[in-house]
Parts: sequence; structure tokens; C-alpha cells
Amino acid sequence: MQDRTSPALDVALAYFEAWTSKDMGSAMAYVADDVVCDAPAGRIEGADAYRAFLGPFTEILVEARLIAAFGDAETALVMYDTRTRPVDDAPAAECVTVRDGRIVASRFIFDRAPFDAARAAASAAH
Amino acid sequence: MQDRTSPALDVALAYFEAWTSKDMGSAMAYVADDVVCDAPAGRIEGADAYRAFLGPFTEILVEARLIAAFGDAETALVMYDTRTRPVDDAPAAECVTVRDGRIVASRFIFDRAPFDAARAAASAAH
Repeated sequence: MQDRTSPALDVALAYFEAWTSKDMGSAMAYVADDVVCDAPAGRIEGADAYRAFLGPFTEILVEARLIAAFGDAETALVMYDTRTRPVDDAPAAECVTVRDGRIVASRFIFDRAPFDAARAAASAAH
Repeated sequence: MQDRTSPALDVALAYFEAWTSKDMGSAMAYVADDVVCDAPAGRIEGADAYRAFLGPFTEILVEARLIAAFGDAETALVMYDTRTRPVDDAPAAECVTVRDGRIVASRFIFDRAPFDAARAAASAAH
């Protein structure tokens, strides 16, 4: 299902394997210092901000499973399911641009609604 | 950027072209009668339910632009941006399984949060 001749996909999959294993050090080795990520809540610029975005997610991550992954020389597109502590079924998709073995740009899509609902329910319970 | 030897991608792109042109008749010709679509709000089963899900979205659609699209024999993965009347920037990703020229399964991801917020704002204004 994957084109193994895609260097961008190789990077995207290595990055996926690292962050879903909660190995933030290895994950960030695939992220460029000047990465630009367009995520549901807005634009994230730079590796420090990106790590501050991804790190907390890995802390609530229970498991992740790849749904599909494709790529070419510079672009990779992946879709995966995650199970998280607040939300049982939280799929996401990422389109990454890779240069010199690192992700320089990312478009990231997931549904914030169930996370917002879980947060509201937790607040109401306190 | 696209593998033109992918029959699943050909179907996914023809389907994308049709529904983003608001041509529901042509779009539904690429959707199997027994399609199963896992969308943010839950599972949609059958072409009638699928049309009832997609049709209203095409009515609020202003424009759509493909971000990336890849596929192989049976699977295609697409990501696109949409601009809609209630939400300016509403990207989505779809992973479709294609058999005999029709989409039999779909995994659909978008962020419901800005649509929920737009709906709440519209309600508050009335």
C-alpha cells in the first residue's frame, strides 16, 4: 500500500513511529527547526512550539494505528487512528513536506469537537 | 505528485471534482449503494444516507482546493481545503476504498469545532 521509493514517506513513517512510541527526542529529529504546521487551532511555527504542541498529545495517547500512508519525493500524506485518554476514537491526517530528511511544513487535521466536549465534561465534574 | 496508475485515485479525484462542482448526480455515481463512511459525527451507511450527509455540505461550499492526493489499486487518500459560508478555512481528509469503480468505504476527517462555533454564534444572534 505504500510506495517505498518515497523519501518523504520514509521520514513521515519514522516520525510517526517515534512520536506514537512517545519518543519525543527521536520524533523531533525529523522536524526542521523552522517547521511551519497548520493545525486546527492555528499556525505553529518553529520546532520549540511544535514540540510544545505534540508533547502533551503524546502524554494522553493510548495507542495509534496507521490507516493509510502515501508519498512521493517531497510530500507524504498519512491518516491514522488514535485512542487517547479523553477521547476513544480520534483519527487524524497529516500532509507533510520533507526537505533534507526533515519535515519543514505540515498540514494537520483532526476533529477538536470530542476533545472540547471531554474538557467541558471534566470541568463540569469539578 | 499523484500516481496516475492508481484506479482508486482516479475514482477519488473524479468524485472530488464532481461534488466540489456541486454535481451531486455525478458524485453519487462514484459511491456504492452500500457505502460505509466513518465521519466525525459517526457512521453513515448506504448511499441515501451518504447523499443526505454530503448534499448539505455542497450547499454551503464556496470553493475547494486539493492539497494532496495519492492512491494505489484499492485505496486513495486525499486532503483538501474548503472555504464554506460559515467557516473560512475548513480542511478535510478522506481515505476511500474503491471497488469496481465505486467508493465502498470512506474514512472522513474534519474539524467540527469551527462549524459548532459558527452555529452557536448564529443561534446567539437570533
